Amino acid sequence: MSKLRSAPTLEDVARMAGVSTATVSRCLNSPDRVVKATRQRVLSAVDTLGYTPNFAAQVMAAKRTFTIGAIIPTMENAIFARGLQAFQEELHQRGYTLLVSSSAYKPDLEEEQIRTLVARGADGLLLIGHDRDPKIYEYLDRRKIPVLVAWSYLPDAQVPSIGFDNRAAMFELTNRVIGLGHKRIGMISGISAGNDRARLRVEGVRDAVAQNELAVSDLRIIETPYEIENGAAAFSNLMSKGTRPTAVLCGNDVLAVGAIRRAQEMGLRVPQDVSITGFDDIELARIATPALTTVHVPHRDMGRKAALELVGMVEKTADGTALRLPTTIVERQSLGRPAKP
Amino acid sequence: MSKLRSAPTLEDVARMAGVSTATVSRCLNSPDRVVKATRQRVLSAVDTLGYTPNFAAQVMAAKRTFTIGAIIPTMENAIFARGLQAFQEELHQRGYTLLVSSSAYKPDLEEEQIRTLVARGADGLLLIGHDRDPKIYEYLDRRKIPVLVAWSYLPDAQVPSIGFDNRAAMFELTNRVIGLGHKRIGMISGISAGNDRARLRVEGVRDAVAQNELAVSDLRIIETPYEIENGAAAFSNLMSKGTRPTAVLCGNDVLAVGAIRRAQEMGLRVPQDVSITGFDDIELARIATPALTTVHVPHRDMGRKAALELVGMVEKTADGTALRLPTTIVERQSLGRPAKP
Repeated sequence: MSKLRSAPTLEDVARMAGVSTATVSRCLNSPDRVVKATRQRVLSAVDTLGYTPNFAAQVMAAKRTFTIGAIIPTMENAIFARGLQAFQEELHQRGYTLLVSSSAYKPDLEEEQIRTLVARGADGLLLIGHDRDPKIYEYLDRRKIPVLVAWSYLPDAQVPSIGFDNRAAMFELTNRVIGLGHKRIGMISGISAGNDRARLRVEGVRDAVAQNELAVSDLRIIETPYEIENGAAAFSNLMSKGTRPTAVLCGNDVLAVGAIRRAQEMGLRVPQDVSITGFDDIELARIATPALTTVHVPHRDMGRKAALELVGMVEKTADGTALRLPTTIVERQSLGRPAKP
Repeated sequence: MSKLRSAPTLEDVARMAGVSTATVSRCLNSPDRVVKATRQRVLSAVDTLGYTPNFAAQVMAAKRTFTIGAIIPTMENAIFARGLQAFQEELHQRGYTLLVSSSAYKPDLEEEQIRTLVARGADGLLLIGHDRDPKIYEYLDRRKIPVLVAWSYLPDAQVPSIGFDNRAAMFELTNRVIGLGHKRIGMISGISAGNDRARLRVEGVRDAVAQNELAVSDLRIIETPYEIENGAAAFSNLMSKGTRPTAVLCGNDVLAVGAIRRAQEMGLRVPQDVSITGFDDIELARIATPALTTVHVPHRDMGRKAALELVGMVEKTADGTALRLPTTIVERQSLGRPAKP
């Protein structure tokens, strides 16, 4: 033992008790919020080491609630579940508890939930995507609440983001589709107003159509909320008017699963008669028959890195650096060459 | 106008502004938490009517945060999503905001989340199922936090519940399976320790096996966490040892989807070679091929009624009455008669 007789630190207590320093702080400042067994272990370590918390550390700890808020657009279809689970696991490691709200893609509701989480003392917030009323960012800035955006990487946005390039990802997938010989493309997009992820995915499709010099009039786009039934209805719509597309790109896996179901009800084989692709690579994509060719989003990696960065912002050890994560195309069975005309 | 010159009430303001009385209270007590447009409408009604909040009402309102907490076991596979969405919609109607935590089926984590939600001022809590350390109920009782349990109806439990009878529902489904001629039954259950829903579903299967005088030794049960991969692994296990079951009852749809996938990988036709059933009737059940025969849980109805009861408990207009909702068997394509031996 080289560290002879120096005063024991918070870190020493944490190490001896086998917990994070946040947990030690919490035991000392709000013992009520710590499970009994943990509290006893920490207090016994405090006792053994003769630790005396210093005043500055106490004040700092007391100002924190060790609560992080996240607002996701929906809990349905588990679109955000895997990323959020990883986010929570990493937060838990660092001694923070996650509280989640779901806004049903409604800006008013999201605003109310942001105000509630701030009023309830959240130390920091995770939000999905960038599009929202600027006065919300002003409000959070005034309150000095660290905010991180996930699921959409935009380096020049007002708040830092950890996510992926929705436009580039959809551009790459559309290029792949066009490369197989498809010329008449349909797209079933989510509602793009107030949703930068949806908007940028549409832009990605448009970019690829333009770059491959396809007729823009051959690109038909329908916007509809992200629900299976809506994907089915939009697919019917695309197939019933004018020349049928040979490939239908969907804004996410949920819409794609609806499109596949309707194709089968219409007696169309996927991908022999029509190709259908998704976006996100959630569980549904593998369960669909045929399994979906889709854009794989690094859900767990994104969730974990977002937690690390946001905790760093709360603890003032990180300044909120935007980070772009890669996406990949997962080839399964729903995309093929177009039928010979 | 018969109500001449009587002092305007909170209700009058709410009516004129077209909002709930909770929203009026909130505007007066924490204006910061109300969206600007609503606040202006309420304040203009206060002004027009010349309303003066009475002191008692102010104190009452100030004691509330209009925040309800819910802790669900998982966000994955959207098992709880539809019920929770309905729960939130109904809360929103009544002026309350929902904050959700997900415990990953871990009792320690759930306890930490309960303490966090209470520390953050939740007016009431929704919990899933009854099984937990009695000291948690004591803690909530001491803090006078109204608690309602959903997804499991137990009339004699310590706290009121709005849910369904897991045991009776599984008993009914098992009877249906046995009625088709199945004698060798396998079951893939969730982990039953600390999970009354899982435990009672197993009991329901046992009840039906006993009542139909099948050999209990022909009932084989595997417990595994609710994940698709685990359902697949458990199915392999059931089919590889001893005499194969002709029907496999799964503790939920997620396990059943895993079992179907593995059956197909093993070259077994469902239901010609083996029948597989689920429980919950989430979206996955319809997307699976073949679509799952399963127990339909009234998710939306349960969520809505739980919100009404819990708000009533918070506002002291309801005393928390247990309510049993019916389940039904949904017949799709995954259950058939056993093959001739």
